[in-house]
Order: sequence, then C-alpha cells, then structure tokens
Amino acid sequence: MNAPADHAHLAPELHLREVPAALIDALQQRFGPQCSTALVVREQHGRDESIFDVPPPSAVIFAESTQDVADAVKLAAQHKVPVIPFGVGSSLEGHLLAIQGGISIDVSRMNQVLSINAEDLTVTVQPGITRKALNEAVKHEGLFFPIDPGADASIGGMAATRASGTNAVRYGTMRENVLALEVVTAKGEVIRTGTRAKKSSAGYDLTRLMVGSEGTLGIMTEITVKLYPLPEAISAAICSFPSIEAAVRTVIQVIQLGVPIARCELIDAGTVRMVNAHSKLGLREEHMLLMEFHGSPASVQEQAEMVQEIASEFGGNAFEWATTPEERTRLWTARHNAYFAAIQSKPGCRAVSTDTCVPISRLADCLLDSVAEADASGLPYFLVGHVGDGNFHFGYLIDPANPQEHRVAEELNHKLVHRALQLEGTCTGEHGVGLHKMDFLRREAGDGAIDMMRTIKQALDPDNILNPGKIFTY
Amino acid sequence: MNAPADHAHLAPELHLREVPAALIDALQQRFGPQCSTALVVREQHGRDESIFDVPPPSAVIFAESTQDVADAVKLAAQHKVPVIPFGVGSSLEGHLLAIQGGISIDVSRMNQVLSINAEDLTVTVQPGITRKALNEAVKHEGLFFPIDPGADASIGGMAATRASGTNAVRYGTMRENVLALEVVTAKGEVIRTGTRAKKSSAGYDLTRLMVGSEGTLGIMTEITVKLYPLPEAISAAICSFPSIEAAVRTVIQVIQLGVPIARCELIDAGTVRMVNAHSKLGLREEHMLLMEFHGSPASVQEQAEMVQEIASEFGGNAFEWATTPEERTRLWTARHNAYFAAIQSKPGCRAVSTDTCVPISRLADCLLDSVAEADASGLPYFLVGHVGDGNFHFGYLIDPANPQEHRVAEELNHKLVHRALQLEGTCTGEHGVGLHKMDFLRREAGDGAIDMMRTIKQALDPDNILNPGKIFTY
Repeated sequence: MNAPADHAHLAPELHLREVPAALIDALQQRFGPQCSTALVVREQHGRDESIFDVPPPSAVIFAESTQDVADAVKLAAQHKVPVIPFGVGSSLEGHLLAIQGGISIDVSRMNQVLSINAEDLTVTVQPGITRKALNEAVKHEGLFFPIDPGADASIGGMAATRASGTNAVRYGTMRENVLALEVVTAKGEVIRTGTRAKKSSAGYDLTRLMVGSEGTLGIMTEITVKLYPLPEAISAAICSFPSIEAAVRTVIQVIQLGVPIARCELIDAGTVRMVNAHSKLGLREEHMLLMEFHGSPASVQEQAEMVQEIASEFGGNAFEWATTPEERTRLWTARHNAYFAAIQSKPGCRAVSTDTCVPISRLADCLLDSVAEADASGLPYFLVGHVGDGNFHFGYLIDPANPQEHRVAEELNHKLVHRALQLEGTCTGEHGVGLHKMDFLRREAGDGAIDMMRTIKQALDPDNILNPGKIFTY
Repeated sequence: MNAPADHAHLAPELHLREVPAALIDALQQRFGPQCSTALVVREQHGRDESIFDVPPPSAVIFAESTQDVADAVKLAAQHKVPVIPFGVGSSLEGHLLAIQGGISIDVSRMNQVLSINAEDLTVTVQPGITRKALNEAVKHEGLFFPIDPGADASIGGMAATRASGTNAVRYGTMRENVLALEVVTAKGEVIRTGTRAKKSSAGYDLTRLMVGSEGTLGIMTEITVKLYPLPEAISAAICSFPSIEAAVRTVIQVIQLGVPIARCELIDAGTVRMVNAHSKLGLREEHMLLMEFHGSPASVQEQAEMVQEIASEFGGNAFEWATTPEERTRLWTARHNAYFAAIQSKPGCRAVSTDTCVPISRLADCLLDSVAEADASGLPYFLVGHVGDGNFHFGYLIDPANPQEHRVAEELNHKLVHRALQLEGTCTGEHGVGLHKMDFLRREAGDGAIDMMRTIKQALDPDNILNPGKIFTY
C-alpha cells in the first residue's frame, strides 16, 4: 500500500533534525545486531497506514527489554535526537513517521505476557504483544481482553492512541481498561504509574495522562490491563435496514434504554458490496447493523428481544443469527475487512479516514448530512461505525497521484469534523491525532487546553525528543 | 467535631505565606459581600473532617460564577497567594486546610444543573451541587448519578478527589464518570477539557489529569458526568457471616465470577453495634455484607441467586431482603451512618481513617491481618468496606488530646498501608492524598513518578498558588 514517492502534496511539513554519526555508532555498540540501519528496515518503520510519505528514521532499535528502551532513549537524549516507538505499524494518522528525523524503537520483540492474575481479572504484558496474541494467552483461563480496533494492533500502540473498537460500547476503551504502566521517560528513567488495585485516588492520574499521549510523553514498557470473564453466552446477529437513518435511530434507542449490547456496528450498503466482492461473504447488500450480545443465556435472550423489537419499529428486517463461533467469525470478518476490501475496490488508492464521535443523540444529524455530502462529492467511500458509541468512520478513497481527489476528501473531512464539534463531539474517537488532526484538535480543545498540553510536554520532555511534531505544534 | 485548639501534635508543618492587605482590599472591592473575612466564616472554611488543626484562610470568596472564580484566582496570582477551592468541607484528608495561608474559594453557590442531556445520559453541573441534589434534579428523567461516597459531597469535591463509594463496583468512580470539565487555571484563565462524546483520542487526557488533582492544578467550574437509567428493578439484601473471612471469601468469588453486583459492602460486627446504638436499627450484631442488585427483574433474580449460593457455601445466613425503597433506605442508612455512629460512640473522639485498596485476590490477606493488629492494639475502631472493589476503611477512634492514641493509630495505618502496597494495592482508594498520605504516596508511586507529578505541577502552577502543600512536597 505504499504510494509512489513523488507526491509532495501528501507530505507534512518536515523539520529534520541532525542524527549525528556518533549516536549511530553508540547505538550500534550498545545494541549490535539489535540496531539496524538497513534502508528496507528503516523504510518499514517510517511508514504506517496513513497517507503521508516522509523520509524514514536513521536507525531502528529492536528493543528486547525495558533496559534496552531506557538505554536507547538515554543515548538519543544525549544528542537531542527524536525517538519514535513502533509496535506493528497499524497507525492511521502518521504517528510513526519521523517528520523530525530520529530513530525508531521497535518494541515488537517485547511481546511477553508477564503475569496473568486471573482471580483479579488483570494481566501485565509487554507493549509489543498484539491483542490477538494476548487473547490467545488468556483464553485458557476463561478470560478475554475485549478491546478490538480491527487491526491486530500491539497493546502498546493501542494504549498510546487510546484505542477502542467494536466492543467499546460495553467494555470501554483503553482509557477505562489500562490500570498501570511502566514508562521510560524522556531522560531514559523508568517509572511506574498506577497499581493493580481497581480504583485509586493516589495523586495525579499519570496512567491516563500517558494513555493517548501517542509516544510524546514517554515510552510504555509494561502495561497492566483489565480482563473479563468469557461470557457464558454470546450471540451475534445481522439486521438490515431500509435506510441509514432507520439503522441509526434503532441504535440510539437501544443505547438510551441502557441495553448492555456488546457490539453495535453499522456498515452501509456500499461498503457491504465492497466486502462481498473482497471476501465472498454473500451478505445482503443493504445498510446493516452487526450486533453482539454477551451474558448469561437468559440475559442474552432478553437483550436480543429488546433490540429486535426496536429494530422492527424502524423497519429493520428479521435478525440473521450467528451463534456458533464459526458463524460469528464470518460476520466479524465482514466488519474487520471493510477497510481492506475498500482499499482493494479501487486499485492503487489510499483512504482518507475520518473518526468523529458525537453524543448518541446527535448521531443521526452528524451522520446523515455527511453521507449526503460524500454522495454529492462523487468520491467512492466506505462507511463503518461503532455507532453504539456515536463513533463512525468514512474512508474516502483517493488516488494519491490526484491532488484534486485529495483536496475533495480533506474538504469532506473538514466539514464532517466541523459538524461533529458543533454537535459537542470530538474529531477523533479512537485513532488519535498524529499528524492528520492537529488543526482539528486545536479547534476542538481551544488554545487554552492546547497551551496546557504544550506546557506539560515541554516540562516532561524539554528537548522535545519523544515522538516530536505530533498532536500539536511546539 | 472540632477538636480543641491546643493539640499541636496534630498539626502538619505550616509554611504560611503572607496575604497582603492590598489583596484583601482588591477582593473586597471586586466581590463586596461575596468576600468575607469574618473569623467564624474563615474557621468554617479552614477545617474538614480530618484530624488536623491549622489556622484558617485569610478570606473566603463565595463564587457565583466561573468569572468570579477566574477573577479571584487572577487577583491572588498577582500577589502569589494560595487559593483553596471549597465545596461542602467533607474531605477526610486535610485537602481544604490553608497550611500555606491564602484564601478559600467557596463554590457552594455554584450549584446549578446547567444542562441535562437525558438522551445521551449526561448532565453538566456547576461544582457546588451535591450528589443528592443532582440526583433530585435528574430523577424525573428516569436517570441517576451513581457515585455515592457516603457524605453528601459536592460534585466538584468528588471530582477533585477522584471519589467513589458504594456503587463503584458496578458503575466505576469519578475517573470513569467525568466526561468533560471547565477549569480555571493558575493564571485565572478558563479552559475546557473533553467533550460530551462518549470516547475520544483527542490529545492528552486533561480531564483525567484534573480529576483527582485535589485542586492543585486548576479549579473546576463546570463538570459533565455520565448518568444511568434508573434500574428497572433494585433489590437489596443483608447477609451475616460467622467471620470476616467468610464474608470476604464470598465477595471474592462473587467478583471473580463476574456477577454485576451494584453494591457490596462489609460492616464488621463491632461497627454494627455502633450503628445500632446510634440509629436504633435493630440489626443483627454480626459481620455482614450489604448488597444491592440492579437490572431487569430477571437479571436481579439471577444475580441474587448466584450470590446466595456462594454465601451459603461460606456459612452466610439466609438473605434478609429489602425491596421497598423505605427498607432499602434503612439498610443504606446503616452503612452511611457508620462513620458518625462510630464518632459518637466515644465522646470527643476523632477518627484516623484508612483507605487502602488491593486487588480482590489479596483482600483477605490484607484485611484479616489488619483486623488482628487493630484488635491487639486495644483502640476502638470501626471497619467498613467497599469490598467488591478491594477497598476498605478502618477508622481508629482516638482522643485528640492523647498523643499516645494518635501514635498507635498512625502505626496501625502505617502497617496497613505497607501491607497493601506489598499486595500491589494503593494507599488510597477514594479519599485522596491531601496532607495525610503524602509519605504513603511517595512510597507507593516511587520517586520517579512523584518527580513527574511535581514537574507537571511546577509547569502548570509555577508560583504554587493552587492548593499548595497537598499530595506531595515541592
């Protein structure tokens, strides 16, 4: 999915800082084969799923321990050189890009489960473990980790972007599910935040300050998250609707009635067509809600009955149920492959993704006007949404060689964000700010809050070496 | 409950800063009758439910608007004079005490509900509204605000101390339930953090940095919190147990099985005796769990049956049910009056309260050893606990004129905190650090994390005027 290198219009402003040869020498001496300067390795670490093309980092450190991370940061700090943590590279917003130069610290080898505390429903992991690997590691305990952003992202990356996904409507986001951290600071010191206690009033909430800070305040080296008992019963269902509005009105009522639905996802008819073409799923090509219910058998049935009743009021068709694990996997494959199905529907394209999230009462207003604008633009797009949370994503499919398409996509995104902010929402529900939403964030948060963020950043990282140039300018 | 003024041994170290007459003049000019320097008013604002006695603030501003708070802070900032926000004065840890002098900003007149968004399950309030008043204001919408720390605290105070209470086991704490804030900074500027969107990845989580910062980083002037639909069915029950251990083992199993119990409180037999004496409730004087179940009628029954089964395995007696609102009120009155019942059981006493919280698997270890130590000490005490969260409180009842009793109580607290930290817990589950737990926090968080907190504080409040001397030293 790499774009050709000649599309300067896609590049963010670069402020490349010097990476002295003395630093590379010192890194090679300390890390030996764990330090790579090979172009192919650097390029792989200088790119994510965003539309941006920038020069790669000067070296990649494959950290295998907290000490490795601390030592790499200390060496970089001596030379005031940027360090950028790297998990699996699934960021959508340019978080990983070395726009000020520097070195990449790849934590993917730090992928161990350090301790499972099944009785307390907690697990402590290294940041490089992916969510699927974590779930494999805990399932024999009858437990699972619900946060599911689609991609098989690393837990470190998910914490750094405050990720969420399809289960957040019931289980919350990384904000609610990270209990404690070990963090390497800008000086290369190792600190701990939080404990395994379920709640605490012990001073500033450094854990939640780090969660969502996108690598700009510290590098996470251990992460303790909550687990949940695997539900006794799980049922998933598809319901199709005559209009997006009918689907959205159904969702709003489900949420307002407090039904503890575990997943509640919208896919519009056009995206279902792309998914069918890509994954041969044979789904009915209509707007649809994909839902999942967790609980005791009685509670799952009670929830499903309530939702069916509401859906039928809005013209929803009868549910198609998926009760076996295989059927459920097929159904959620449709949801998770939407992005890739869309990308492949237009060869060579990239997606400009949106990520607004609004209060549920504003969801119809926000979504329907934006659909009308997208339809009018003529750009192909996909539309999926964690609508139970008021969060949805357009992906406008653009030819990266065509500046006009890029401009149209960004205008659509602009209008959508502006609308979401007017409706008391946010420009980013779960992807983070990165490079792509810095202007949006300023508009959302206001200069006062941005000043406060900047003041914190400058205090904790005075030489601005931790993933500089992301979230806001300074 | 004010102690006589001659107990110097109870006083924390004072570093009184000058409050110039020019500032008092300026405040009186700006605020007229909203500014009081009357001794009785100042003394009322210079004291909370903690054991500390310190000189009162030099003036009290009765703020009626955000602008009032901002102007008061700006005037104080010109003279580098401390400002201490005041809600209803129910802090247990000395949060409100003017240990560096300064002025109190009383926000109790800022007690309005600004907007109820019933469809989104959110409400925006001023900080001075109490939790009971908030619940009165939203109940006609079929909604409630679950956080219940016992005292009818202000929402501002609850947010500032990251409070929780009896419902946290199901609904979370202020950490999970505050969505957005308006905050007056140390410069007297007004910023907003967060939005009404249910989730967000938009930059640093300033909302959660402010929640629990105990007035040291800013003064909250608007608070948006989550609401919940009033449960269709509520049942409360008492179950008594032959030992504290049997009660605790029951709780541990209930939590580990994922039963969504709404309240799960321990009261030990001695405390039940105090409550009976105080409130004439005629409760069976045994160790007991007070529980509440929320949900659909079927789900409440299902939960209750599971818990009864577990309790009976550990020798718990048959449940005594309270299904009418009046019966439930009687039962929760027992829990909420425990503190006052205990205080009144020993005339003239004060309580040294503990607030440890540990992972649920460690609860029995932590609690039982501490009970044995308390029994051996000979000091009377009360013991209550939000045991579903692993959080419990001893209140050692001391004669404030008796240094020996105070010493014994602090030693017990010390041992308890040390034990909780070894068991991966926290020194404070919900009361905050204030003046009382600064040493404990340093031990819990470590010098590195305290340095990070201090760095943030110094960056956001360089003249150290926002509630100085609390949480950590600087």
